[in-house]
Amino acid sequence: MKAEILCVGTEILLGDIVNTNAQFISRELASIGIDVYHQSVVGDNPKRLLEELTSSFKRVDIVVTSGGLGPTPDDLTKEIGAQFFKKKMILDQNTVDKLKNYFDKMGRSYLKGNNMKQAYFPEGCTIMENDHGTAPGCIINENGKILIVLPGPPRELKPMFLNSAGPFLKKYSSETIKSKILRLYGIGEGEMAQRIKELIDKSSNPTIAPYAKENDVTLRITARANTEKDALKLIKPLEDKVKNIFGDNIYGYGETSMEEVVAKILVERNLTISTAESCTGGLIAAKFINYPGISSVFLDGAVTYSNEAKMHRLNVKKETLDKFGAVSEETAREMAEGIAKTSGTDIGLSTTGIAGPDGGSEEKPVGLVYVGLYIKGDVFVKKLQLSGERNKVRNRAAVSAIDYLRRKLI
Amino acid sequence: MKAEILCVGTEILLGDIVNTNAQFISRELASIGIDVYHQSVVGDNPKRLLEELTSSFKRVDIVVTSGGLGPTPDDLTKEIGAQFFKKKMILDQNTVDKLKNYFDKMGRSYLKGNNMKQAYFPEGCTIMENDHGTAPGCIINENGKILIVLPGPPRELKPMFLNSAGPFLKKYSSETIKSKILRLYGIGEGEMAQRIKELIDKSSNPTIAPYAKENDVTLRITARANTEKDALKLIKPLEDKVKNIFGDNIYGYGETSMEEVVAKILVERNLTISTAESCTGGLIAAKFINYPGISSVFLDGAVTYSNEAKMHRLNVKKETLDKFGAVSEETAREMAEGIAKTSGTDIGLSTTGIAGPDGGSEEKPVGLVYVGLYIKGDVFVKKLQLSGERNKVRNRAAVSAIDYLRRKLI
Repeated sequence: MKAEILCVGTEILLGDIVNTNAQFISRELASIGIDVYHQSVVGDNPKRLLEELTSSFKRVDIVVTSGGLGPTPDDLTKEIGAQFFKKKMILDQNTVDKLKNYFDKMGRSYLKGNNMKQAYFPEGCTIMENDHGTAPGCIINENGKILIVLPGPPRELKPMFLNSAGPFLKKYSSETIKSKILRLYGIGEGEMAQRIKELIDKSSNPTIAPYAKENDVTLRITARANTEKDALKLIKPLEDKVKNIFGDNIYGYGETSMEEVVAKILVERNLTISTAESCTGGLIAAKFINYPGISSVFLDGAVTYSNEAKMHRLNVKKETLDKFGAVSEETAREMAEGIAKTSGTDIGLSTTGIAGPDGGSEEKPVGLVYVGLYIKGDVFVKKLQLSGERNKVRNRAAVSAIDYLRRKLI
Repeated sequence: MKAEILCVGTEILLGDIVNTNAQFISRELASIGIDVYHQSVVGDNPKRLLEELTSSFKRVDIVVTSGGLGPTPDDLTKEIGAQFFKKKMILDQNTVDKLKNYFDKMGRSYLKGNNMKQAYFPEGCTIMENDHGTAPGCIINENGKILIVLPGPPRELKPMFLNSAGPFLKKYSSETIKSKILRLYGIGEGEMAQRIKELIDKSSNPTIAPYAKENDVTLRITARANTEKDALKLIKPLEDKVKNIFGDNIYGYGETSMEEVVAKILVERNLTISTAESCTGGLIAAKFINYPGISSVFLDGAVTYSNEAKMHRLNVKKETLDKFGAVSEETAREMAEGIAKTSGTDIGLSTTGIAGPDGGSEEKPVGLVYVGLYIKGDVFVKKLQLSGERNKVRNRAAVSAIDYLRRKLI
């Protein structure tokens, strides 16, 4: 099976945004055994869009588009799809009801402007619901040609592909490709690749491939087989070898995050937590609160950016701040203990550091961060020296702090 | 002037990497007045590469490629370029010398493998030196058709474009393109487009185009002129019209964010602020602290997720929580006032709401958020009904709260 990807959006051609959709769709298609031989991008221009669609369908039987589903007059992907397949555009009452409901909730009129445009679809198509936006997608399947029309915003496109388009296309592919993703923290991409170089070279089915992301590195083990069960059976022995090599550096599997992994442990063990953040400025609390079940254990958080707040909220001693400074092992320790004790939680997690760009010195350079951790009477401190600009330092400090807690809990 | 971009690389089609080269080249071409109407990606496949190159040169006179310049046998971009222009491949002695020098330095033999392949170029082309790798690029300029061949790795491609390809192409463009971006909040994409539909339709130079992003909508006004000054002069009257239409909904210009705009106002006016967050769980604090200069005015933040923390940290009255509930106008009010007074700040900003997925009721549905704002003795509360899943609600609530403060400050 072969497919082409056609992304629609003048903002991509202007270089305003990176085309991450093409990558996502390519990877997902590969995972269900469909080869992508061509990606292209055209602007919101009906003539060029139709030309490209026509060219693509000359070469392959499956075309996946992204973008051009919105309410504005230059959003035309569905309309051009209908034109290519010689279909009329038909109003879908179910979508009308949903739009009406959505706009009622927002206190705005759904009939205003072009919103109704989003409820018209090529006759006979399958509509794919959009759980994260107002524009549904659709599938036209006619005379052996399949057109999959997805929205442009990645957070709408991804779930729609995973929930609707992917399962639909899977029926057309005889091979199953199954991947397992292992997430690592506390090890660099280079070192990881080095340690498994031999495994990478020796493995063909399953394969193993490293990927580096912003804050962590991942390993993907991929097997091809006739059934999912057979693929998983192929993956297992290689996965065990990898686990053996990296141990605690592996913090999770698949689509998860450090905070989710740790939040789950806290909820499972009913360990209450509070946070006291200086340089991370609320990021740790915000990360934990991403996890819906957290409210039973996350009781309190303080963003004590000033010395006054550190003393007033956390009972950090003035002498400690005077003698060792706000960015010190001692302050981190008192912050963690202070937040846990004033909140009455089992765990207190603190950060204090220099995120930059200013405020660094020879003794305490930008990127120096102390993580304080109070667990039921014991206090631990970890010193980090992070690189990168302000937000990278802050984000790394937040993830490192949560990882530090994880390692103490497991 | 029109151009197309053709990226070569199987790793892009597999979704292993994001095609950042296409974005970079698009943006650079736009800035020198060259329109990109089409981007495409093909694998390391000579037939498809030649087809795509032929299609592109039917539509435009300039094609910029990236990738396929390496030493392996499937790196074929130069060779296919030569084939298209009916040129022989000629050994370039200067490149041979450099390769030899490079590999001598590395203690490796340059004759090993296919390294010599990188020293062959289409006859009559202009060679572009590669200061960050071994594969030079080239420009073929023949019968009004220009082919720019760049390497794939971004760190090699970018300097080669900026130092060689860009200046070469600039000679062919008499125009400068200048854009101004206006950022809006509190208005939907559909409604915005509706309100300026006439302006969009009537404008050709400058043009005006709407874009929707995660949390805000933007308008881009773009003018073409002989000089940057003339382009800016063209932009001004249209910008004034747009400002007239959207007023306070415009919160900023160019690369900025809501939190940056508000943080700057706070620092300028030396207004101190503290935050008390329930459903946004530290996001508002984290957003403010993105702004490096904030430490002089952001004094304190509380993430009071539990009722106990609301009472203990913010002096929210038990009766208020009992009578009206944690998610209520009254609690939002007491939270804002409580954090400001206990921190001694001019401003206190609070949120309390139901981010979901659980916890909603008929009376207080998921997405209901109250924003409390204390400013030097006055307290204001705004009720929001937000849609979307948990993190969308939380993020929108955080941005809306900061926007609420902005509107009170301006």
